[in-house]
Amino acid sequence: MSSERSIAILSPGLLGGSLIKAILQRMPGMEVRVWARREEAVLEVRREFSAVIASTNMAEALQGASLAVLCMPVQFMPEIARQMTACDLADDLIVTDVGSVKGAVVSGLEPIFAKARAVFIGSHPMAGSQLTGIANASADLFHRAACLLTPTPASSRRLVERLKSFWLRLGCRVLEMTPQAHDRCVARVSHLPHAMAVLTTLAALHDDTSVLDSAAGGFRDTTRVAGGDPAMWAGIFLNNRDEVIDALEDAAESMRELVEMLRRMDEEALRRFLARAKALRDLLPAV
Amino acid sequence: MSSERSIAILSPGLLGGSLIKAILQRMPGMEVRVWARREEAVLEVRREFSAVIASTNMAEALQGASLAVLCMPVQFMPEIARQMTACDLADDLIVTDVGSVKGAVVSGLEPIFAKARAVFIGSHPMAGSQLTGIANASADLFHRAACLLTPTPASSRRLVERLKSFWLRLGCRVLEMTPQAHDRCVARVSHLPHAMAVLTTLAALHDDTSVLDSAAGGFRDTTRVAGGDPAMWAGIFLNNRDEVIDALEDAAESMRELVEMLRRMDEEALRRFLARAKALRDLLPAV
Repeated sequence: MSSERSIAILSPGLLGGSLIKAILQRMPGMEVRVWARREEAVLEVRREFSAVIASTNMAEALQGASLAVLCMPVQFMPEIARQMTACDLADDLIVTDVGSVKGAVVSGLEPIFAKARAVFIGSHPMAGSQLTGIANASADLFHRAACLLTPTPASSRRLVERLKSFWLRLGCRVLEMTPQAHDRCVARVSHLPHAMAVLTTLAALHDDTSVLDSAAGGFRDTTRVAGGDPAMWAGIFLNNRDEVIDALEDAAESMRELVEMLRRMDEEALRRFLARAKALRDLLPAV
Repeated sequence: MSSERSIAILSPGLLGGSLIKAILQRMPGMEVRVWARREEAVLEVRREFSAVIASTNMAEALQGASLAVLCMPVQFMPEIARQMTACDLADDLIVTDVGSVKGAVVSGLEPIFAKARAVFIGSHPMAGSQLTGIANASADLFHRAACLLTPTPASSRRLVERLKSFWLRLGCRVLEMTPQAHDRCVARVSHLPHAMAVLTTLAALHDDTSVLDSAAGGFRDTTRVAGGDPAMWAGIFLNNRDEVIDALEDAAESMRELVEMLRRMDEEALRRFLARAKALRDLLPAV
């Protein structure tokens, strides 16, 4: 039993497509409506999901929706939000998103929707892949993933609970935090690892790509996310710039320490340094 | 059909244990002998592998062996090599290893064995795990892995070919390179990624480990190898210090570039930077 009547997904890429699949599978009978900017994307959605109403016309896609989920890159969200408020929106509509940044997104979108008497509450399901596009979508993408909800003092408790129950139905673990706490947290466990994977790839391969013939699982895993979409990640990094710079500066500081230990040939200190990292990494439960 | 008669594995941890399993599975009938420093390790080997001759007595473990594989951390290899040369060694014995560093290992071990009229040729199967110990050993660990052989001008071609056929039998792809080329290559695709995983873990978690509740696959993969054995990796880093520092300095340089682009809010440059990393990462074939 769901409190939602009809769910609109805006911009069906990897995450939007996975949402469609997960909703159809876990909320049988739910109406799913899709807005896509490009006609080809609409046709792809119709081909993949015969039961879904898909359109490039935003008013049509939003008609009667009780929940709308923004799935475009974060830098495009304010413009899309303004287009949405020009449409006829249901009285009980909750607008949310799946963006990897919350401070800039919530402070940008909350007033746009408030002016149109609509409600925006930020969501961030910690799920994704270096792959992109609806072709790589999976109904299981959200299963057991943390979903970070970032209500503000303006968010009604009842609507936060409704949004929470949506994510729970998709199999997420839901955590609530402020947009600022979200951005600090996600800078550490997602944006920093992404940046480090990019730096590792560049430093490993810039000079000679033939070393790839010798690469094993360590290289593969450590650099996997560097295969992610450059435009999407540029938007994420810039929208969470201060926290990302902070995290990178912590990593730079540890890097200087490490190089210093190597120069001094200080095996004892190096071992302690590596043991400290191991103890921290071992806190992550095995899957 | 193998040219080997009897294979001795010295120090059966994750790699040595996996070698035993792979040999028993892929070279049926081959005699396998094991030396371990600790009596408990010998008992564990006997319990796991009834057909294997295991001893803390090095002379007994090496008796009649045509191939001996050193599987201890690289920093202990010279001492073990000296102990080996005090034993009665077969005339056709090839000694090799599975160490992650080759410059220091080969220049250290080749003369020790040469003085005893024995032959050392370095090997480095690019296989492993953050896990350790014989309990995590797997017969498939070497399957499709690159194995880097590092012969020197002193290595007889016939013996290099014999060693090569051993690794091919275990399912490896064999590449030959000089010890120096090996250390440069492996610094880039293995030691640097390991160091970066350690730095990512420390910078992500040093301040607040509760962020782990929000971690997803990106954090998991990017930091996986930071769970590796600190003592083993301290030895690897110090024995390949110059190349590791070089690789870290390249990464530090890219990190400064990235922070600079973020400070300038230069989306165009950031996108190009991320696209360059993606293009390089995409060169790695999917598994």
